[in-house]
Amino acid sequence: MYDRIKGFRDFYPGEMGARRATIDTLEETASRYGFREIGTPALERAEMWTDKSGEDIVDELYAFEDQGGRHVTLTPELTPTVARMVVAKQQELSKPIKWFSTRPFWRYEQVQQGRQREFYQTNVDIFGSSEPEADAEILAWAADALTNLGLTEEHFEFRISHRDILGGVLETYDADVDVTEAIRAVDKSEKISQAEYHDLLVEAGLTYDQAAEFDDLIASGDLDAVEEFADTDRVTAAVENLQNVLAAAEDFGAREHCTISLETARGLDYYTGVVFECFDSTGEVSRSIFGGGRYDDLIEGFGGQPTPAVGVAPGLAPLSLLLQRAGVWPDEELVTEYYVLQVGDTRSEAARITRDLRDRGHVVETDVAGRSFGAQLDYADSINAGTVVIVGEQDLANDEVTIKDMESGDQFQVPIDEFPGDRDRPTYEDFA
Amino acid sequence: MYDRIKGFRDFYPGEMGARRATIDTLEETASRYGFREIGTPALERAEMWTDKSGEDIVDELYAFEDQGGRHVTLTPELTPTVARMVVAKQQELSKPIKWFSTRPFWRYEQVQQGRQREFYQTNVDIFGSSEPEADAEILAWAADALTNLGLTEEHFEFRISHRDILGGVLETYDADVDVTEAIRAVDKSEKISQAEYHDLLVEAGLTYDQAAEFDDLIASGDLDAVEEFADTDRVTAAVENLQNVLAAAEDFGAREHCTISLETARGLDYYTGVVFECFDSTGEVSRSIFGGGRYDDLIEGFGGQPTPAVGVAPGLAPLSLLLQRAGVWPDEELVTEYYVLQVGDTRSEAARITRDLRDRGHVVETDVAGRSFGAQLDYADSINAGTVVIVGEQDLANDEVTIKDMESGDQFQVPIDEFPGDRDRPTYEDFA
Repeated sequence: MYDRIKGFRDFYPGEMGARRATIDTLEETASRYGFREIGTPALERAEMWTDKSGEDIVDELYAFEDQGGRHVTLTPELTPTVARMVVAKQQELSKPIKWFSTRPFWRYEQVQQGRQREFYQTNVDIFGSSEPEADAEILAWAADALTNLGLTEEHFEFRISHRDILGGVLETYDADVDVTEAIRAVDKSEKISQAEYHDLLVEAGLTYDQAAEFDDLIASGDLDAVEEFADTDRVTAAVENLQNVLAAAEDFGAREHCTISLETARGLDYYTGVVFECFDSTGEVSRSIFGGGRYDDLIEGFGGQPTPAVGVAPGLAPLSLLLQRAGVWPDEELVTEYYVLQVGDTRSEAARITRDLRDRGHVVETDVAGRSFGAQLDYADSINAGTVVIVGEQDLANDEVTIKDMESGDQFQVPIDEFPGDRDRPTYEDFA
Repeated sequence: MYDRIKGFRDFYPGEMGARRATIDTLEETASRYGFREIGTPALERAEMWTDKSGEDIVDELYAFEDQGGRHVTLTPELTPTVARMVVAKQQELSKPIKWFSTRPFWRYEQVQQGRQREFYQTNVDIFGSSEPEADAEILAWAADALTNLGLTEEHFEFRISHRDILGGVLETYDADVDVTEAIRAVDKSEKISQAEYHDLLVEAGLTYDQAAEFDDLIASGDLDAVEEFADTDRVTAAVENLQNVLAAAEDFGAREHCTISLETARGLDYYTGVVFECFDSTGEVSRSIFGGGRYDDLIEGFGGQPTPAVGVAPGLAPLSLLLQRAGVWPDEELVTEYYVLQVGDTRSEAARITRDLRDRGHVVETDVAGRSFGAQLDYADSINAGTVVIVGEQDLANDEVTIKDMESGDQFQVPIDEFPGDRDRPTYEDFA
């Protein structure tokens, strides 16, 4: 008897059905937007992460040396891989490039609710446009996908900002301020006390007075006040870009889901413009559900031509928490339209009916285990069969089969040549 | 600039679309049979393979020690994982258990056409039935899935046998004959010369005369002759079981695709009953496309209650070779129903039309890159847009938009409140 590995999950059919329905909705919504599916490897060279983040990142990766001596890692995220793919075919690909994919990623980190070491994300990205419409299309896809999953603005909100607002405001302080550290502090501010937050800002180089002033300004979310305070081209441009993105989001139907929230920084360093995070509006799920934003420098950093990019990557585990708390997680019950029950030596006729019903697109099971009448009926019940078609020797002698409605328990004899006959989906009601 | 790892592929949208269509057909067919999707981890304990096959198997695996000191491996196949999952919930699961899943697997082996180190398979299994109907349902699913992919009996055949036929015949020779080695020799016989084949049989303990006799008997495919030659309960039972499976396959619609072929042994040691392999009928693809069979001892070997099992696992790469040679590989062209082209400051109206069309389920793109008329039209062409809706400032002043058919190049002005209006899928023809 072997155990599964910590942080890795098995998904049995009920839960898997709900996950699949969720992924299908995310992907169908992406397809309607003209995002195209891509397929990507589970393994990449570890250097794709260590070159940028240093050797210590390996502690958070499933990295190893393969039989051929390559330093490889299970990919902890998609972005470096899609960047590599864009660079590899940058001449042939017509832009904007709009891609999506759903797949697992792997990080060696603390396991907690909603966070496993193997986790699924649907990545949706646009490459080749620096226009605010691209940012807005990502927001619109995310809003549409969540809406199609049954969520409303009562359930979720996108907290949106621009990376240069925080950076630009921080630049106006002393040159010794470590802007990256200060942004990391802002990114953590929701999870820690105000005093701890201010301590971190002071560690990054602000005075305590400056930290309090900075905190007030950012918490206000007042773009005019921020622009006036900083009074630099960088902040002015960032505010204007954020406003343009929100105006495009208005046209694209996503504005109502967006709240300006200048604390939103996103932990990852590669973001360069608009950033946003999706939160549970009710606050029941306190962590960010997922996030996204603009990362215009990444492709160039991978050796490609400068290529602006913007994307988002909802993770299935945190998303499922949100859907469950909102009461719209898909039903985990199995769905079976028909069970064709064999009594006696009726396999040939039962098989014919089974095939006819499957050809009509239904989920149909029949006995493949030589079970008794009662055992077959129990099994039909366990798979939530809607209709049981009983093919018995006696009925067959009269050229009949019995149709049983599993909800009511009612049943009715039907001439065999009328089942399924011309009907797309014959049920008990058609004959009773 | 980073390279991808040898044996790992990137799939860009065109090819990915064809792969997705193929997987969808395999999975939809499985769903109709009442197979239920499961989700499984990419990593398992390496002992799940080394305990059974010895430490040398590690050379063929992506095995490593994780940050927590666990000996883990990227899974090279699904069967041990599903066996573990069945054992973990054997009391709760109602039987027969019918599961499917499509996902990548990983083996460190020689890269060649149709064989990468990362490869995708759709696994379809039934647990908990030893009846011939279960074997036949697996055959019927495979035949139906291939038929739904556009293949006919001109394109594929299932070569079918029973593991105990070879084993039972070999047992009738000297007790020193290494039956496992001899079966491995049979498994290789298609790929090597007859002399080499006989040499391998002799290495396994037969004399050259016996090797020739055995080869003749097995090559004949004559079940009566085999039964008479061996004259043991084991072989008689195996022949009877194979005949029963074929009779059930007749009822289930798969018999016409099956050819008795006693050389079919399947390399893997865990098979215990009926085994089969799918081949290209034309011989153009010489290797087996995929295979399957019965493995009744595996679950017990994983510490579970004795649970008979039968399954099959088509690999996407060899299957795509077969589909391509048969001329039924899905079209790799992108499909886009509409491109909504913006000329001047028309974003708001273009966005409204785009959203209306997407709400009807269509694939619709609009400009998110601030492109010129010509650049947008080129892009619309590159994504194979069927209809271009031109939203121009001048047309809008007259409350009109222009509908352009991309095939013919014809275009027509249409009142804006009629587009899309009540139409599910408005095209140029509706207005011209």
